[in-house]
Amino acid sequence: MSVEDLLKEKIRQEGRVISDDILKVDSFLNHQIDPVLMLKVGDEFARRFSNSGITKVLTVEASGIAVALMTGLALQVPVVFAKKKQPSTMGGDTYCGQVRSFTKEEVIEIVVAGSYLSAEDRVLIIDDFLASGAAARGLLRIIDQAGATLVGVGTVIEKVFQSGGESLREKGIRVESLVQIGSLSGGMIEFLN
Amino acid sequence: MSVEDLLKEKIRQEGRVISDDILKVDSFLNHQIDPVLMLKVGDEFARRFSNSGITKVLTVEASGIAVALMTGLALQVPVVFAKKKQPSTMGGDTYCGQVRSFTKEEVIEIVVAGSYLSAEDRVLIIDDFLASGAAARGLLRIIDQAGATLVGVGTVIEKVFQSGGESLREKGIRVESLVQIGSLSGGMIEFLN
Repeated sequence: MSVEDLLKEKIRQEGRVISDDILKVDSFLNHQIDPVLMLKVGDEFARRFSNSGITKVLTVEASGIAVALMTGLALQVPVVFAKKKQPSTMGGDTYCGQVRSFTKEEVIEIVVAGSYLSAEDRVLIIDDFLASGAAARGLLRIIDQAGATLVGVGTVIEKVFQSGGESLREKGIRVESLVQIGSLSGGMIEFLN
Repeated sequence: MSVEDLLKEKIRQEGRVISDDILKVDSFLNHQIDPVLMLKVGDEFARRFSNSGITKVLTVEASGIAVALMTGLALQVPVVFAKKKQPSTMGGDTYCGQVRSFTKEEVIEIVVAGSYLSAEDRVLIIDDFLASGAAARGLLRIIDQAGATLVGVGTVIEKVFQSGGESLREKGIRVESLVQIGSLSGGMIEFLN
């Protein structure tokens, strides 16, 4: 079975529609994690973005880390996760972005230390969900500040109706989603792929 | 080269002693992550805790996730990461613990959803650092609330002089550290193993 079909099966069996906007997949993606499935997800992103000269995988803590790590493993490149607010041990030059959290209803600052992104880097953004695109925009800002090159955005589940993917694609950014969801209305999960 | 020696080499080359208490290893462990090294770290924890009947690997977001994920992959069991403060989508039954963050100088609440730990689980705690043991104690409280069984604690770097490991071992808990550091005084890293 393809990784896309495995994901859809998992979402059908274990996903819970909390509202017309929120799908909970805490049982295998972002609270409890299925490492074997994540390995397959990482392999698939590496396959889709092969021959793109990627030098870094970039994500945001915490739910993006597992997917990004497996993608970095498959591509054999380092993974960098942006931290939420600046820890006291970070110091020095940093790149910053802002992300409006949809589920937590707050704006958070995300930070990457200057040492871990440079103008020579070709960066793949990886995240668990693509909804409004807020996290991706925050990471784009960080990539811009570093003068690095964005190769594309890979996301496990794109909630197409929240149009973050559309706005990224309109900018000419390559977006690869393993599962696309068209609607969660009435508690029903409508897959587009 | 053994994974322990690889880690010590990395720490010698890239680690930075910030104070007598703080060693920064942001370049491969907890900001930028080396996925290939993490795979080896996960394999080694799986080897050390083989035949222990582990059913879950438990960690805390965010820096523990990469190590825990690779350990879960090697053991072929799910990974659960405790979340810092309760997201609005979590709801329902939860297990809670408290962790005093050494580097951020604050007390944070950590939470695991009730669905992901049960009395049948045999749990391995995995984290990047073991210092005062605050994170481990928070996770122990969560395991106790779930009625689950603790198999042991695995940590990449133990700062032995901060005595978290000692206090866990005094309780009869099996603690496995890949690298043990005896002192960071005067900017020098003293390895014990």
